[in-house]
Amino acid sequence: MAKKRLTPKSQDLSKWYTEVIQQARLADYSPVKGCMVMRPNGYGIWENIQKTLDPLLKNLGVENAYFPLFIPLSFLHKEAEHVQGFSPQLAIVTHAGGKKLEEELVVRPTSETIMYEMYHRWIHSHRDLPLILNQWNNVVRWEKRTYFFLRTTEFLWQEAHTAHANHKEAFKMVLDGLESYRCLVEEYLAIPVIKGRKSLSEKFAGSNMTTTIEAMMPDGKALQAGTSHDLGQNFSKKEVFDISFLNEKGEIDYAWQTCFGLTTRIIGALIMVHGDNDGLVLPPKIATTQVVVIPTEDKRDVNKLCENLVEGLKKECIRVKIMSDNQHRLGWKLNEAEIQGIPLILVVGQEELNGNYITAKFRHNGKKTTFKLESAINEIVKNLDSIQSEMFRKAIEIRDAQLNEVNTYAGFKTTMEKKKGFLKAFWCEEDTCEKLIKEETKATTRCLPFVDNDGNVLEEQGKCIKCGKPAKHRWLFAQAY
Amino acid sequence: MAKKRLTPKSQDLSKWYTEVIQQARLADYSPVKGCMVMRPNGYGIWENIQKTLDPLLKNLGVENAYFPLFIPLSFLHKEAEHVQGFSPQLAIVTHAGGKKLEEELVVRPTSETIMYEMYHRWIHSHRDLPLILNQWNNVVRWEKRTYFFLRTTEFLWQEAHTAHANHKEAFKMVLDGLESYRCLVEEYLAIPVIKGRKSLSEKFAGSNMTTTIEAMMPDGKALQAGTSHDLGQNFSKKEVFDISFLNEKGEIDYAWQTCFGLTTRIIGALIMVHGDNDGLVLPPKIATTQVVVIPTEDKRDVNKLCENLVEGLKKECIRVKIMSDNQHRLGWKLNEAEIQGIPLILVVGQEELNGNYITAKFRHNGKKTTFKLESAINEIVKNLDSIQSEMFRKAIEIRDAQLNEVNTYAGFKTTMEKKKGFLKAFWCEEDTCEKLIKEETKATTRCLPFVDNDGNVLEEQGKCIKCGKPAKHRWLFAQAY
Repeated sequence: MAKKRLTPKSQDLSKWYTEVIQQARLADYSPVKGCMVMRPNGYGIWENIQKTLDPLLKNLGVENAYFPLFIPLSFLHKEAEHVQGFSPQLAIVTHAGGKKLEEELVVRPTSETIMYEMYHRWIHSHRDLPLILNQWNNVVRWEKRTYFFLRTTEFLWQEAHTAHANHKEAFKMVLDGLESYRCLVEEYLAIPVIKGRKSLSEKFAGSNMTTTIEAMMPDGKALQAGTSHDLGQNFSKKEVFDISFLNEKGEIDYAWQTCFGLTTRIIGALIMVHGDNDGLVLPPKIATTQVVVIPTEDKRDVNKLCENLVEGLKKECIRVKIMSDNQHRLGWKLNEAEIQGIPLILVVGQEELNGNYITAKFRHNGKKTTFKLESAINEIVKNLDSIQSEMFRKAIEIRDAQLNEVNTYAGFKTTMEKKKGFLKAFWCEEDTCEKLIKEETKATTRCLPFVDNDGNVLEEQGKCIKCGKPAKHRWLFAQAY
Repeated sequence: MAKKRLTPKSQDLSKWYTEVIQQARLADYSPVKGCMVMRPNGYGIWENIQKTLDPLLKNLGVENAYFPLFIPLSFLHKEAEHVQGFSPQLAIVTHAGGKKLEEELVVRPTSETIMYEMYHRWIHSHRDLPLILNQWNNVVRWEKRTYFFLRTTEFLWQEAHTAHANHKEAFKMVLDGLESYRCLVEEYLAIPVIKGRKSLSEKFAGSNMTTTIEAMMPDGKALQAGTSHDLGQNFSKKEVFDISFLNEKGEIDYAWQTCFGLTTRIIGALIMVHGDNDGLVLPPKIATTQVVVIPTEDKRDVNKLCENLVEGLKKECIRVKIMSDNQHRLGWKLNEAEIQGIPLILVVGQEELNGNYITAKFRHNGKKTTFKLESAINEIVKNLDSIQSEMFRKAIEIRDAQLNEVNTYAGFKTTMEKKKGFLKAFWCEEDTCEKLIKEETKATTRCLPFVDNDGNVLEEQGKCIKCGKPAKHRWLFAQAY
């Protein structure tokens, strides 16, 4: 049975990526420029991300809410840096209900301004704090060049926005939000990440500090997988949204705020990090379908055994599907299961029936094995766990091989030209050096890595790789998506 | 402790409704005309509706997907009746990314056209059918006068869109979709509904038949709680979206389509049907919080008991919260629990501790009781079930008292002026009579009720209440939201 042609991943990552997304039916181009359609195989991954991340956020005291899609244009202008950051990307509604609008409406690129106007109305006393809201929604940022999942004009995400009585509590929330993302991305998506804080030029427009988790793609380019921001009192101060409250001493104070978001772009990372020449490879914890059962012949006993297997797996809360239709041939089904990246492919025919076993194929390493029928369910559950940890271990190995320290700018440039990857290097933290490095090597500061869960960083004594002046920290550099 | 003033429900339903929504913090007005903010207490109800309805739909073979927010204006023009229905309500994006767009984009009022363009691309053979997709998303329909939940410019909903190889299969899907809605609304929201089909003038723009579930509000006005549409081949035919496929005989055929949707407006019905003069009353199966535990004094043993209770209830998957903070007084807490409509309010103090019991207050009937500590968890679980069925029984009684047959137009007019409600009456099914009845009584045809789950209706011999000509069916009339 001829397989669909898929460009080898190592030959042309970008081409492979676009092809595998369409062949695995994760997404498709839409008639609207820059917007894609997420098909069930792709949206199912997002549903699993939601089911995983939502309880992690709720454990932090987050409550879900929903704010309007439209924002009056004047709201965005309230925070100067914020509007500057988003203006070039806005989609504007000028007409509605058959009339020209008095004030133009922006389709939300992010919801700070519409939410903080409500925070201003709701928060009056320290008793109203903390206010910790999140929404799962769609946002629009006009993009010139788009790319499935990684950069689309409309995308789905969650955005949490919190207000606190003091900075200490707010900063803890920034780090707790980031830790939720690390947990999701490492423990469920099996993608290793590096936590840290962004440089001033790379921080979120309107924040005092942006923290990030950074992942490495197979082509040596970094991908920002989730960010959590310390907004200080930038939005809450009197002349912006005036989110003031009477503190316990009875004095007027302004709320300390944070926000953090994770988008469908993480699905792009998932595809790139784990996929291979035969298609997607999905970690069991986040796969839309974890196990597929394929009968090799249409016989009553074979079908019965397959159905029992499916029932047994469903009882264990395994996401299982059966491919038992007669419309497609066996070869087509095996190829489909493979390209869709289903972690465990079970094959059952007369031979298996006679021998009281089932044949299993592991998608992540291509190995085949058999499970005795009597212990099959247990074996499958156990193997899904080990697939998950093997995939994470392999991803760490690959990432670590792409993570190097460098002490000369010549070495830095050569590496960025040839194999790319993460480079740790001293930087003086001056804008000029950061800009020159970017111009000359396409590498940006990804983050200053944290050494613990409290946001501390390693202090060292070194010299800026670019200008040679004293530098206190080794930053993480990479070219980025 | 003085309660917040809430207009009595029977005195002014509309005022009560607006007040209770704000006082229970379900929603608030937003700075964008016609758009509201759903706060956690309100959005939590929507989350529970999603958690309930989503698996009901998945049982029908529905898969979730996501299609773009924006639709090229020209797409809407492809189906003549469809564009006519939605044109006056469109919000239009004319500028994006700092430029005027070549083709204006509509913010989706519903997604038929963008989805069916993709169906055209994806469906080629009978093997590609059925295609049964759903999306949970936001849509925008510009409204002149808006009303919390019941009519807002932006609202949340699910919209399922299906394509089948023949009409029989499609029509079964229409009815199965409708049955999912009945199950959700009656068995979870405890609101009785009447299933039936709409008249031609009331059907969805672009459909051949609209089926509906209709609920009755306390003021005698009906509310359409969910609709499921038989689209025939109106969108699939060659000159519209050309969703053609090779059937099993190898001939070109056009897909038979359906769509069905349920919106956040159902939350408005939930509030109106069950609420009372003291606030919301929520049925346990859909309440954001099912049980609240309120310690009456801040003592170590009392707090310990309350925490154990919460832990025990969480293990039973009960949505429970504790109000143990010292910032608010007991009276405030009891009032809050009441206005939020939490089904079961548990009160624990020294007295309860000494007597080894807890005090429970039922929100739906105001009764108090005590549970022995040793069997409290079981009693609570059992009582939540009985609250649910009592609330549904009561709602049926009230609805049935508002449901009458009428045989004279004089009687029809008097009832519609005075007590309103549902009226069953013969109608000749001519447009002119329907229009005149609407003009003279404000009553519209809500539906022709089904007598079974196959969409059959009762055939009778009667005379049209308006013109006296022969009529075959008694239709359900009411004034409507």
